[in-house]
This record gives sequence, C-alpha cells and structure tokens, in this order.
Amino acid sequence: MAQAQVPEYVRVVEELFSKYKEFVYVGKYIQRWDAVAKITGKALFTADFLKFYKDPVYVYTVRPKYAHAYIKSIDTTEAERYPGVIKVLTAKDIPGVNDVGYVIPDQPLLADKKVRYIADPVALIVAEDKYVAAEAAELVHVEYEPLPVITDPLEVVDLKTLKEKEHVRIHEERESDIISHFKIRKGDVEKAMKEADVVVENEYRTGMQEHAYLEPEAAIAIPEADGGVTIIATTQCPFDVRKAVARVLGLTQNKVRVVVPAIGGGFGGKEDVVNEIGAKAALAAYYTGRPAVVIHTREESMIGHSKRHPMVAWYRHAAKKDGTLLAVEANIVLDTGAYASLGPFVAWRAIVHSTGPYKVPNARVDTLAVYTNNVYAGAFRGFGNPQVTFAFELQMDALAEELGMDPVDLRLKNILREGDRTVHGQLLTKEHGVGLEETLRKAIEVIDWYRKRKEYSQFAEGTLRKGIGLALLWHGNSIGVEGADYSSATIIINRDGTITFRTGLTDFGQGALWGLVLIAAEILGVPPQLFRIEPPDTSSTPDAGPTVASRSTVMGGAATMNAAYKLRKRINELAANMLGCSPDEIVIRAPEKEDVKPSDVEVFCSSDPSKKVKWTDVVEQSFWDGVPLQEFGFFRAPKAEWDEETGQGAPYVTYTFGTMVAEVTVDIETGAVKVDRMVTAYDIGRVINRVGAELHAEGGAIQGLGYALMEEIVHDKNGVVRTYNLSNYYTPLVDDIPDEIIPIWVEAGFKRGPFGAKGLGEPSIVAIAPAIVNAINHATKHRFTQIPLTPERIYLGLKKAGKIKL
Amino acid sequence: MAQAQVPEYVRVVEELFSKYKEFVYVGKYIQRWDAVAKITGKALFTADFLKFYKDPVYVYTVRPKYAHAYIKSIDTTEAERYPGVIKVLTAKDIPGVNDVGYVIPDQPLLADKKVRYIADPVALIVAEDKYVAAEAAELVHVEYEPLPVITDPLEVVDLKTLKEKEHVRIHEERESDIISHFKIRKGDVEKAMKEADVVVENEYRTGMQEHAYLEPEAAIAIPEADGGVTIIATTQCPFDVRKAVARVLGLTQNKVRVVVPAIGGGFGGKEDVVNEIGAKAALAAYYTGRPAVVIHTREESMIGHSKRHPMVAWYRHAAKKDGTLLAVEANIVLDTGAYASLGPFVAWRAIVHSTGPYKVPNARVDTLAVYTNNVYAGAFRGFGNPQVTFAFELQMDALAEELGMDPVDLRLKNILREGDRTVHGQLLTKEHGVGLEETLRKAIEVIDWYRKRKEYSQFAEGTLRKGIGLALLWHGNSIGVEGADYSSATIIINRDGTITFRTGLTDFGQGALWGLVLIAAEILGVPPQLFRIEPPDTSSTPDAGPTVASRSTVMGGAATMNAAYKLRKRINELAANMLGCSPDEIVIRAPEKEDVKPSDVEVFCSSDPSKKVKWTDVVEQSFWDGVPLQEFGFFRAPKAEWDEETGQGAPYVTYTFGTMVAEVTVDIETGAVKVDRMVTAYDIGRVINRVGAELHAEGGAIQGLGYALMEEIVHDKNGVVRTYNLSNYYTPLVDDIPDEIIPIWVEAGFKRGPFGAKGLGEPSIVAIAPAIVNAINHATKHRFTQIPLTPERIYLGLKKAGKIKL
Repeated sequence: MAQAQVPEYVRVVEELFSKYKEFVYVGKYIQRWDAVAKITGKALFTADFLKFYKDPVYVYTVRPKYAHAYIKSIDTTEAERYPGVIKVLTAKDIPGVNDVGYVIPDQPLLADKKVRYIADPVALIVAEDKYVAAEAAELVHVEYEPLPVITDPLEVVDLKTLKEKEHVRIHEERESDIISHFKIRKGDVEKAMKEADVVVENEYRTGMQEHAYLEPEAAIAIPEADGGVTIIATTQCPFDVRKAVARVLGLTQNKVRVVVPAIGGGFGGKEDVVNEIGAKAALAAYYTGRPAVVIHTREESMIGHSKRHPMVAWYRHAAKKDGTLLAVEANIVLDTGAYASLGPFVAWRAIVHSTGPYKVPNARVDTLAVYTNNVYAGAFRGFGNPQVTFAFELQMDALAEELGMDPVDLRLKNILREGDRTVHGQLLTKEHGVGLEETLRKAIEVIDWYRKRKEYSQFAEGTLRKGIGLALLWHGNSIGVEGADYSSATIIINRDGTITFRTGLTDFGQGALWGLVLIAAEILGVPPQLFRIEPPDTSSTPDAGPTVASRSTVMGGAATMNAAYKLRKRINELAANMLGCSPDEIVIRAPEKEDVKPSDVEVFCSSDPSKKVKWTDVVEQSFWDGVPLQEFGFFRAPKAEWDEETGQGAPYVTYTFGTMVAEVTVDIETGAVKVDRMVTAYDIGRVINRVGAELHAEGGAIQGLGYALMEEIVHDKNGVVRTYNLSNYYTPLVDDIPDEIIPIWVEAGFKRGPFGAKGLGEPSIVAIAPAIVNAINHATKHRFTQIPLTPERIYLGLKKAGKIKL
Repeated sequence: MAQAQVPEYVRVVEELFSKYKEFVYVGKYIQRWDAVAKITGKALFTADFLKFYKDPVYVYTVRPKYAHAYIKSIDTTEAERYPGVIKVLTAKDIPGVNDVGYVIPDQPLLADKKVRYIADPVALIVAEDKYVAAEAAELVHVEYEPLPVITDPLEVVDLKTLKEKEHVRIHEERESDIISHFKIRKGDVEKAMKEADVVVENEYRTGMQEHAYLEPEAAIAIPEADGGVTIIATTQCPFDVRKAVARVLGLTQNKVRVVVPAIGGGFGGKEDVVNEIGAKAALAAYYTGRPAVVIHTREESMIGHSKRHPMVAWYRHAAKKDGTLLAVEANIVLDTGAYASLGPFVAWRAIVHSTGPYKVPNARVDTLAVYTNNVYAGAFRGFGNPQVTFAFELQMDALAEELGMDPVDLRLKNILREGDRTVHGQLLTKEHGVGLEETLRKAIEVIDWYRKRKEYSQFAEGTLRKGIGLALLWHGNSIGVEGADYSSATIIINRDGTITFRTGLTDFGQGALWGLVLIAAEILGVPPQLFRIEPPDTSSTPDAGPTVASRSTVMGGAATMNAAYKLRKRINELAANMLGCSPDEIVIRAPEKEDVKPSDVEVFCSSDPSKKVKWTDVVEQSFWDGVPLQEFGFFRAPKAEWDEETGQGAPYVTYTFGTMVAEVTVDIETGAVKVDRMVTAYDIGRVINRVGAELHAEGGAIQGLGYALMEEIVHDKNGVVRTYNLSNYYTPLVDDIPDEIIPIWVEAGFKRGPFGAKGLGEPSIVAIAPAIVNAINHATKHRFTQIPLTPERIYLGLKKAGKIKL
C-alpha cells in the first residue's frame, strides 16, 4: 500500500467506531474467563509446571559482594566439586552473544570484566537441587578489585548545568555515563519568564519503586529435539524473550519457543529481566539436556530486577495573574542504575509528558537518564510519567497558591481541549477524543470539591488535619516513536462453533485478553463464554509486540477487530446465501444465559426474523462450502513523529486523560496519613471490559498510594539494597486502602481505537501520588516535594518548618 | 463467493501451476528437517514424553474373553481394592457420549450391553503403575452370556445374491449387519456379456493386513486449569481426536487440545483408534486430575486397532477378440469386523476404483461392507483400492491369457487416456494430467518387458521358475465425496527472517510436511533450512482436515501455496518500494550452502541486480511499515459428485496413475518366492519432495510385497487373534526386499495441484500385490487368486493342480 493512504486495517477500525453505538458485550459486567481457575487455585503459574516436569536442574545465580568492582579472576573449581553440582557456567560458556541489554547492548548476561551493581550475575550454578545450588554459590571464588560506588545520580550530572561531572566511570566502554538526553524547545522561555506575573520554582524527588508483584520471576527451559529450546516463563513480552534467548544461545528465533502460562502480576517488571532469566535457564538446558529452572526468591527478585526510575527534577513555571500559563522550564534527571534497560524510552516518555495536559506556549525541558551503581531501573507502570506528573501537578498547586486561585480554576484555565495544540505542537482534534475537561468537571462534582476544599482548610481535630487535593494526567497511548508499533490476534472458529482466540500479547493479571475477546464477541455475535483464550506462544502466533505501554486494548483490540470483521463479513455472506436475504441484514444473537452453548446462538435476517438458522449450522456449512473461518488480525499504529532537537511532532496517536482527587486525614503529630476517599475519573475513549476497568482504576490507585506514601527501594552508600524483602519494603496493606475509590468513566471516543477505546493500564497510577500529596499539602499547609512522603518525612518536614512543636 | 465461480484460492494454485516451469527447491534432493533428530534418537515420540511428566496414572483396558457375548454384569470391587489401583471406570462413568464410532455411532468407548470382538474394551483400570493396572484387570469380574461368533463375512451375506443371510445379529440396534451397499450401473452389461468373444470369471480373496508400524498407539492426557484437557497422541488426525474426546468428555472442542509429536508410522492405522485411546486417557485425567497415559503393547496394538478390510470378490470381465473391454461385473464383500470404523468410506473407494484405469463401457458392480466378530477394519494405505486392484489386475491377466495377448498389449488397448471417460462418466481432460500410458511405456522399456516375458516363460533351473508380471493403478486424489475436503497451513515470517510453519496435517514418518515447506520455500525464495516445522496442535492452527487419502501434498500443498503467495505479493511490493523497481521484478534468492542464514538471502530487481537488499532488511522494514508477514492459507477441493444409484459422477478431482512391474523367482518345491526386481512408475503430476517420493515408492513396494506374500491377521473360529505379535505375524525382512526397486516419475501435471502435484502415499501400495502375483502366475503357469500368497498356498495350489508331484 502507498504510504500516504490509510491502510485497510485502520479503515476497518474507523468504520466500526462509527457504526457501533450500542453494545451487547462491550462495556458490560462479564466475568473474565480465568476467574474460577484462579480463585480455585487451579491456574498454573510458571513454577507450578514443576509439578509436571521430572528431573529438572536448578540454576542459581552467583552475585557479587561489591556493587562496583573489576573482576580479576573467577575460580569455579571448588563449586564444581560440590556434590550435586552439575556445572558452573561463566561468561566464557555462552555460545552466542553475552548481552541482554534491551535498548543498549550494555548488559552482559554474566559479568566478565566488571560488576556494576550488587546483584550483577557473575556465574551460574547448575545443580540437582536448589539448596545445593545456593550452597555451592558460596564456593565460587571471585577476586575483585573494588571501585568507588555511585548511588546518587547527581554525582554523575549537575542538576543545574546538566553537565557530566568528574566521577568514577561505570560504563567505561561508552562515551558517557549519561545514556540519553531529550529536549523540548518551544517559543521564547526567557522572554515569557520576564513577562510573567508569577513564577514558581521547586525541586522534586521521587523514589525507586518496586513492582512487588505476587509472583517473583521464573522460567523453565526445555531442550528440544532439533537443538531448539522451549521456555515457559512469566513474561509480559514473549517475543522479546525469544529474541534475547536466541541471541545468547546463537539460535535462530524460530528455534526458540516461549510459552506464557498464568502470570502473577507484571506492572512492567516482567520485561527485560525475563530475557535474563530465560537465557540463564536456556543455557543450563543447553549444557545439560534437561529441563532447567530459574525461580527467584523474593530477595533475588527485589535486588535482581528493574525498578521505577527515581527522579530529581527542577521545575520553573510562569503564569499571568489570571492564571494563564506562560512557560515551563525543567531539568529532569532519571537514575537508570547499573544498566540502561528501558531507560532511554522511559526518559523519552517522561519528557513528552513533562509539562502536563496543559496549553504551554513556551517551554524548555531537558531530560537525562544516567548510570549509577544502583539496581537498574526500567519499565514500570506509567513509564516516566508518574515522576513528571508528580512534579508538574505539585507545581500547578504551588502556582495556584501563589496566585490565590483554587487549583481547579487554575487548571480549567489551562487544560487541553479539542482544537488545542500540545506542547509538541500536536493538534488535538475530535478524532483523538479529548475528554479531559469532562473528567475534571465530573470528578469535582462527585466529590463536592469547592465545599470540601474550603471546609478542610479550617479542619482541626486535635492533631488531625484534613485536606483535599487533585491532579490531572495525560498519557500517550501505546509506544509512539519508541518502536515499531504493531499487534496481531488470531481467531479460529472451530467446527463445533466454539472459538479459539490467541495473541502474542500477554495477560499478567490485568485481564487484557478478556477485553479483546469482548471486542471479538461483539463483532461476531458469539458470547465470550464460547471463546477459549490460549496462552501466548511464540510458535503459534505472529509477533504481537510487547505487552507494555497500555497498548493491549488499543493495539490488540484493533487487531482483533480486523480478524473478527473479516470473519463476520464471510459469515454474513454465507448465512445470507443460506437464508435468502442480504448479508447486511444478518443478525447473530445469543440468549442471555450462563451455560450458553454454540447451538443456542441464532443467525437470522433482520428483515424477517423467521428466516433463521443456528450458528452451528452456518459454521458446519462453511466447511462444506470452502469458506475459511480463521483469520489473523493485524494493526499498526500510524507513525509517530518527534524532532530530536525541539521535541516537536506528534509523539503519540492519542492520549488518555484523567482527573484524580484525594481526601486525606493527616496526624501532624506522627506524620501518619490516611487516604479517606479517592475519585478516579478517566477518559479512556470507550469502556471495553467494565469489570477490568474498575479493578484497574482501583489497583492503580492503591499502587499509586504506595508510591506516594511508603514504597522505596533504599541502597546504602555501598550500593547494598536495604529493602530486600516485603518485610522491610512497605506496600499498602488492607488498612491503608481508602474507604472509597469512586471510578468515573468518560468515553470521548478515539477514532482509531477499538470502538473508540484508549489505554488505562498505566494511566491508572500516573496522577495518584500528586493528588494525595496535594491533599496532604492542603491539610498540613506545607509544601512537601518528595515521595514517598513517609510519616517520618512529614513529621520532620513540619518540625523543620516550625509547624509542629513536638 | 458465488458457488459457480472458481474461488480465489483455486485460482492461485492454477496461476502458479502455469507460471512455474523451473524450480530451485521443488523436486530436488534436499534432506528433510527431522532426519538428524530421528537418526540420533533425539526425536520425541508420544511415550517419550513420560521422561518429562511426573506422577502419571496408567490406564489399562480390560478386554473380554469372548469375541461375541452379552454382558450380564461387571463387578469392579475386587479390582478397586487392589493396591495401587486408583479407580476402575466402566461405561457408566462416561460424562459425555459413550461412543467413538467414526462414520456410524456404533462403537461404545466402553462396552455396556455386549462385546463384539475379542478386544472390545469393557473397563479401564487407572493405577499408579502399568504392571499393577494389568494385574488388576484380572480382578474385574464380568459375567458374559456368550453368543455364536461370526468370522466369515459370507456367513452374513451371500456372495452371489448379495442378500443378507440368516445369522446371529452383531449389531441388533441396527436394521442390518450390512453397513453399506454401493453400486455402479452403466450401460447394458447383459447384452455386452452376450456379445463378448471372451468372458473370464473368478473369485478373489485378500487378507486382513496389519499396519505394523514401529510405534504402537500411545496417548497422554493432561488436565487443564479450566476443566479442559491437553492430549499428546500419536495420531494422523488431531482434529478427529479433539472431536471424539470432546464428545466423550462432554466438553466443547476448543477445550480439548491435541498435540502431535513425532510419530512412528501410521498408514491409516492411527486414525480412529487414537480417538479411542485419547478418550480413555482423557477420562482417566478427568477423574484423577493427573496426567494419564495409555500406551499399547504390541499385542494390544495388534488385537485392538483397525486393520485392512479382507475382501471376497467375484469378478466377470468380457472382451472382444481384439482385447477391447466390453463389460465388467463384480460382487465385492468387505469384512469390516466388529465396528464400521471407516468401512463405508473404504467400500466407497473400493467401488470407485473397482474396474481399474480402463475404458469400461458397461459395468455392474456392487460393493458391500458387513459386520463380523473379527477385529474391526478401517483405514489402511490404499483404502479399498489394493483389494479391488488385486482382483481386476488379475482379471486383466486372465483375460490376456484367454485372448492369447501379451498383458501389456491388452492394457494398452484399454487404458484411460486424455479425453476418455471413466466408468463413472467422468471426462479426463488435460487439466487432470493423465500420464498412465507414459508410466506403462516407460516401465516396460526400463525392464525390457517383452524380452523377459518370453525368456522367463521358458525358464526352469531345477525347481526354480522365473516370472514377470505387471499391474496398473489409478487412485482418486484426496477424500472425494467422503467429506468436506479442505485444508490449511500457517506461515509466519519472524523478525529475524526465519519462518515458522504450521499445519494441522501430520507427519507420521512419511515426510509430508517437508513437501509443504519446499512449496513455500519455492514461492518465497527462502531456503527450506530457514523454516521450522512446529508440531500439529489443534489449539494453534485451524482444522486442516485429516492426514489421510494421500491428501497432504495436494491439499496441504495448495493451502501452503495460498499462504506463501499472499506473503510473497506483499514482500514484492515492499521490496519494490525499497529498491525502486516494479513488484514483478523482485527476485529472492539464497546462495547454495549448508549453513545458510537469513541474512544470506538476497532480494533484488531482475532488471538491475545491483539494486539489492538483504531479506532480513525487507523483513525488518515490514515491521516498521505495518506490512503483516503472517498468513493462513486455505484450500478446498472442488466438490465431488456421485450418484448413489448408478455410481455416475466425478468422485475425485483427479487420479494418480501408475504401472508396477515385478520379476520373481519361485521355488515350486517349497513355494518360496523371491521378488528380484520391481519397477514402480507413477504419474504424480509433479515430484515435490524427491527424496520422499523415492522412499515412498520403495516403502510402498515393500509393504505391498508383505501384503502379497505373507502378511495376514488370522482369527480362529472363536474370533481369537492367532497372529498377535510380530513373531507370528510376518512382515518382510531385509532378505525379502527386492534387489532393485526402480522408481520412474511421470509429471503429467494436475492443474489444481500444487505445481501440478498429485498424491503418492497410498498409490505406492495399490498395485504391488497384483504385479507380484501376476509374475508368480507367469512363473508357475498357474492362476492363484488369493493373497497373501504364502509358500504354503503356492505349494498346495500347485500340488492340487498336479503341477508338482511332491
């Protein structure tokens, strides 16, 4: 197809967006397919497959005692002699390429010349037993030459000048320890600053968050007859694992099969680390010819997989007296730890969103990601956006305070609406679906904002203070200019009328695939209960791209639409032939009942409903008439644009918008915070899977609450992780959860999303922390600028400011 | 699409048939993909999967002591108490439908009211151990009321009148123990018989042949989290197993997944029996929640799976003095044993081919299949055709003798050529590719027929006699009017340029899938070594139909063409964009080397070969440009026609033709026969996989030799199988194999076959036995009419005829 034309698969999505106004399955409360299996404990997660596999070998990773050191020598002799040890593998044993770097080839699978963080893999013990393997790890003797350890990114770069400082180099093989530098240059910031009535300037810090999923990382590798390998792994991105394992083992990609069973949470954490552990397991399988297992303990998981990038940012906002934003300036530094992982992409998403969903006529932003000797940071729900949203939404409240305006009014003055241009110059049209204002208006109405804002300003009950705060968000959909943004789905109608659904996208607990089934069910007229979702398997489906960036519903949904649409067209023609009416008149409808069977589904003519056949008869006829009932659906997002020098372009196809409101009670004597109530109002274009959407809004709010108030991976000055287990890394417990989390859905409709849908996965955490901190700042009449805002920080902050006397 | 039009997928095959005259991969000697894995013992067959699976339960079948009896009661108490027994299952434990009948629902999975043959399953022991299971089977107490046993089909039906006789009924639930009756009525047979110069009339008998594959039947069932089940099984027809298991377990088809690993031979034997054992394993998995295993010993295999139908036939041929055939009359009775299995289809294929590849102006043929209490008969390479070919090719030699003509000359007088009509009135055009005469002329030339025929007539060296004989064949391609005749294949081009190939067709040792890969490689220009064939998996591919009826290359190949063609078109456009020439000019070519890599493959413009890119670059570009590189290919054979009353129509889309010649030495004192040399000349339209074709011709000849001379399942009068192991059922050994088997290939070209190809799998056995027996008859100057023609039968036959005196 010519590049200028709209491809057929985009036209299909647009056509169906216009056509469907009412829905049978989409947006309804329908129990997801795997609920019973998960509730009854029958669902099989990766490690559960050991109940099937006989005689596996266990792989344990030898890690260093220094976070930064040269390796002088590795002596594995004693470990290899240890009873039960089969083999000890080091870098020299890798048949392919010793690298698992995701964006930059900077990360050896097994360290050869140096170690760069406290969990950097040095060797692998392959043993008959997991305890033996761990014991033998002590017997690998590594001679190190320790180096000074850098744990603060500001030791690498100056926040004001953004220049690299003199420091001990972490990646000497690279030109610089700054891995990326992105820019926005728009208008004349200096002039705007001079002309402004009000300027606010602050430094913000966010913590290193841990994904803390229920299921730590696991992979099982099974050697295949042709020299290939099958990997069962808890990964969000099976095709990435395939690529990485093929590279490490020196195999072609079609000889590596990755199968993904039930996953106990991902949040972005099960991206590149699974390339690493998958390759470790595959390496052991390659050398032993036996199934090989890597299962991380919680401790290994917490020190050994990527985290959310901590941010240090300096922001300056300028506005007119009436609140009109004139300019934003920011220097943003992200700590990517020992390896780049997805750092450059995280930094890019951070800068794209760095000025918020507002009209910003003048802007100068610089975003840097730098190496340290901390645990490496990578993908995490929100992907750079929660960090910058924390900063700019606190800036907005600070600005409102300086201007003496209500935070809502200030925002209403500046928010992006249809017809506005983003800071990148991207024109937001009706096609994008711009429902931000509606989320804001509905959220403040539901919560009764103005009354409470006033009332809480005066609230004081002993040491208790109340506050209400809000934060807005935008979140670019899918992966934008980060990569080739395609997806696919497979629908096969079986001879008994049931349907087999497959995609290379993964369901890591978020229920993403159920949304795709609802879309297919809507188009085909066949109830979702008659679908079976098969697990992702790189040998069975085409590459559907990674399951990241809130792209499953938008991208996978659009691909699913294409597959379902083609099948529906063929079925309509077939049924029309059978019934003697026009294909356009064919209706497919199932009775509403729990135990619906394929033969319950009816196919009839709208002009004469007495002309009808069973769905199963139509399917059977297709086999006799030679009408294929299988389809791959494909979708590729329109290409994104980004000018490296100015940050101008159209970085994402559309944006999800939202308004978060939080009500808090703070005990100023202890610093304890209780989030009493939250409103989460999202414009996600169209609600596809209503149960999933509500649970997402809730889950994101709770994880965001943890990010705001308690969660932080702490390194000591030697780069040793002090928060290495869930007993010392705090996440929200049941008591921490707000009494009420009220979801509001705005469906402004994105023309190129399935039935108008946009992504929700990441947006659901993006603006939680600033809403809560803005509420705490309102309650305490103090300007906290750092998260996690622990009781200790609140207490010390208020004490230092003389606001409490204890 | 309208019914009258030629569907797009047929047009693609026709277009490529016309276009390709020279080939890079098709028809070349290229080592198949699984050769190394199989030779080195690494290939995994079903039972090998037990090396992975922990804690399986073993399922053993309790079988009766009578071949025909009512079941009065079944007492499982003692067996259930036996240590190690988990459960004993009988008919009442089946949650779905207690039937595994293939064509007719006549075959309970577990007998409830009566048993009908000596291996009829009565109960299942599910135990911790296979020995315990077998022991406990002795403790299931079944009270039987024995019935008279019928082992001869002529006890059920009269060969002359074709009327059902008075007999003890086997299937009382049915109207008759005759399961099918097919007819050909053409012209005026009575008149032709009167006008004929010569009439020959004989009775022919063929034996019950055993598939005798290396790997006995096996299935492993694994329970799934959602109540579904995965079956690993050695089956030719995974979609049939899926259907059968779903029915027995009361599940929808999409909840049953059937995966097919390496298979050690099929020959038609691994069709319905795997439905049975798959269902048994699934039932045990359902009740125990553990992996459940059924593995037949050789004895269980030989008494418990379908066989080749024995035939009794009466034939009368009439001809003019010059050899012109005037009429054929025949009564053909097939013994289908205790259950119909595929009997009706076998009987139909038998009648279609019953008069041979000759012009027969007048014909009256009746073919019946009847129940007995023998082991049930079903599909076996040739599927009814070897039986009738044996009869009509012996008739042709008898006729030649009566006419004093050379057998070749008689055949040349009567064979079907382009422009002729078959006995069903089907016009054979150039589109069908009618290369029969060429096979005959080439075969007799290579063997020096006329000289040897004369020379051997006079040969006598002590007790040794020499003979030369031939037989012709035709074999209708694919499944004709037996069923919905469709197939499909899946091609996925991976991001590194390698290719994943899948189909629901199976490779049971015949190498079928390699032919499909060669077809795809030819069209895509990518060498076959860069393909990986994934095992058949009902959850990963659409139903491709069963792997039977020599249909893989024709039907699967046509489907593969469609997938590859669509991809190639898209790639040509993409490459043309990249290179700046027309899509028609794009050439894709790989260097000839063993270790070829995707990046070695070049894409260039024929008009200017300096305009070139790497294949891998084109593939990478497709991911950025949004060009999907995955396709399902589909093909459905044009509908076949058959008039039930007259046998007129067009039963098959085309026919494979062939001429077999055999040279033998017979020791008339011992009856020992040595087949010295064979020529196997086939018109298969186009040789796709040359290695496979040659090995097929050879394998078919050897299996046909066994059929001709030694192989026979023998029941005693109580229906007990006396040949229950390979120690008493004789198959050809190395010494029995002819010194030379010379393959000849005629490529007449079938317009709707992939590059013109037709099937070879079954044809390769069809005319072996009559060629050998015609040679023996030539050598001994006797007219033997029964196979297997054992030394004993030869000796006794010659003695009875007074031709030897010992």
